[in-house]
Amino acid sequence: MGEALHGTETVDFHGTYQAGIATAPPQAYATLVALDLHTQTDRDGLRRMMQLLTDDAARLTQGVAALADSEPELALVPSRLTVTFGFGPELVRRAATVDAPSWLRPLPAFGIDRLQDAWSDGDLLIQVAADDRMTVAHTVRMLLKDTRSFARLRWTQPGFRRARGSQASGTTMRNLFGQVDGTVNPAPGTADFDELVWIRDGWLAGGTGVVVRRIAMNLDKWDELDRSGREQSVGRYLSNGAPLTGAQEHDEPDFEATTAIGFPVIPEFSHVRRARSEDTRQRIFRRAYNYDDAPVGEQISSSGLLFVSYQADVDAQFVPLQQRLDELDLLNEWTTPIGSAVFAIPPGCAEGGFIGETLLT
Amino acid sequence: MGEALHGTETVDFHGTYQAGIATAPPQAYATLVALDLHTQTDRDGLRRMMQLLTDDAARLTQGVAALADSEPELALVPSRLTVTFGFGPELVRRAATVDAPSWLRPLPAFGIDRLQDAWSDGDLLIQVAADDRMTVAHTVRMLLKDTRSFARLRWTQPGFRRARGSQASGTTMRNLFGQVDGTVNPAPGTADFDELVWIRDGWLAGGTGVVVRRIAMNLDKWDELDRSGREQSVGRYLSNGAPLTGAQEHDEPDFEATTAIGFPVIPEFSHVRRARSEDTRQRIFRRAYNYDDAPVGEQISSSGLLFVSYQADVDAQFVPLQQRLDELDLLNEWTTPIGSAVFAIPPGCAEGGFIGETLLT
Repeated sequence: MGEALHGTETVDFHGTYQAGIATAPPQAYATLVALDLHTQTDRDGLRRMMQLLTDDAARLTQGVAALADSEPELALVPSRLTVTFGFGPELVRRAATVDAPSWLRPLPAFGIDRLQDAWSDGDLLIQVAADDRMTVAHTVRMLLKDTRSFARLRWTQPGFRRARGSQASGTTMRNLFGQVDGTVNPAPGTADFDELVWIRDGWLAGGTGVVVRRIAMNLDKWDELDRSGREQSVGRYLSNGAPLTGAQEHDEPDFEATTAIGFPVIPEFSHVRRARSEDTRQRIFRRAYNYDDAPVGEQISSSGLLFVSYQADVDAQFVPLQQRLDELDLLNEWTTPIGSAVFAIPPGCAEGGFIGETLLT
Repeated sequence: MGEALHGTETVDFHGTYQAGIATAPPQAYATLVALDLHTQTDRDGLRRMMQLLTDDAARLTQGVAALADSEPELALVPSRLTVTFGFGPELVRRAATVDAPSWLRPLPAFGIDRLQDAWSDGDLLIQVAADDRMTVAHTVRMLLKDTRSFARLRWTQPGFRRARGSQASGTTMRNLFGQVDGTVNPAPGTADFDELVWIRDGWLAGGTGVVVRRIAMNLDKWDELDRSGREQSVGRYLSNGAPLTGAQEHDEPDFEATTAIGFPVIPEFSHVRRARSEDTRQRIFRRAYNYDDAPVGEQISSSGLLFVSYQADVDAQFVPLQQRLDELDLLNEWTTPIGSAVFAIPPGCAEGGFIGETLLT
């Protein structure tokens, strides 16, 4: 069809930071997987596991079959594959040499949460992202096989955005409500991004924290809301994502603007208003995906947002923001968090090293 | 990133044949949905339902929001969207004016089958395919909403191939076993294809028959087989899909060739041998997708093939072929059909008409 082929494009695996966080634009598909460690997996086991997984990821991301790859031909289309590892509280405890960051624990309970165990927590996170769903499938399988002696699957969540090349690069994603989702997001490569995302000290220097939330979106109920009601709930126009006080997506919202009869143009309880803080530290880097599972029973859809945010300090950045949204956010009427997990993302590694070496050697 | 954008590409909806069958190459994503009619849905209801669904599909495939589209912005990226409708035996019975083709019934029981009701049969089939997973999600939702008064969801099966643009167009798909899958397939647009696929007479003139089989692939067991064993089971090389008697994927297999000690080079029970008939009518057009669900319990994967084949006469073309494979096919050791359904695909329609009009008016 004459277009440039992108299947052989690769993202560097080795480096100061793990790939798959600042990698931009986010790949079209991601599957997040969480595992529970076997009881007998100790510090030595953790090191062996992370050495194995690092070796697999270093090869597969470069379009090279893993060492014991059972389907080596499936590895030849990396399509910007990245593999990102995160450690849960129990994994860090078993490493037994360092203190975990204080935020590495389940989030405080929020009133809107209806969390299910099946979608929450875990000891090891693996985020596998690529522009090709087949590549994600093969990579997840190869990695899961090599974790078999050390851990068992807890949950797996596949997500998607627009396909590579279906829209101009840099277009902000829409979620399944049709909303432009994630306009306010620090840009990878900027000082602002680095400041918000990367940890500077200790064994996590060059690492970060990740929050994974499975947010069910009640599309059937959303359907009952008219267009103006939808725009009020978010504080942005559906057409292009501009704030209700602006014309373009990236216009600054004017929270002081009032209507002719004195009401705020952007409602006080709208998502965009509640998500904003005077404290510029209370910001996060979002890298979300949509999910769309088979509906059950009378459901017309079982869809939502696989919310993924990266921030250096979960307690200082994510928690206050989420607390404001928990208290009052019009969108809560149509969205329900049903899964939640927090992981520490260790730094990247150089060739010959392995992810987690600052914790496990 | 400089590449040509494909999100606005469309496939004609109206025509002699329904789109989504000869549409080549097959889109990267497809979700197949089957519905059960409500008890009270009669011939008039069927007509109203198909008029509604045709109107939705005619718009959405052209990148235009459906009439009551609740998220019109999500409709603007068709990415070669096609929507293809099929009728199960009960739907044709309720139309009550014509005889159903004799093959429109559940397939004969095969010894290898372990069919689950949850993946089998149905009254109405909708195949939604596009190069963008988001487009598929929105389209399925819009269509399901409009079926609400007439039918309820029976099963939904999402599948994928390589992403648009990740490999050269025309590359034969690999399945999750890593096999080149579907080398022998009539090419859309040829007389051979037309002869095998399209029905010529009656209310189904311009239509066809579709077989949908969910084939679980036991990747864990497959892992225990070495490369040579894998190649023997199929009769083709894994590297490029060439027959074991050839060098290139599309080389004709030589079933007479023997090894130095007199055994056939392509084993008698290999898939490629068993699938082949002397009777050239016993051929089908395959348009399969891979599936990869969340593993359950100790499973490392829950993956397989969403086998979809189109043929003018299911009994004359598909059944004898499947009977040969059922009796003896080395691949049966690692694959298990767990779902099965047969539908009649009515012809396409002109602008102003609707899919199913030859049955329902």
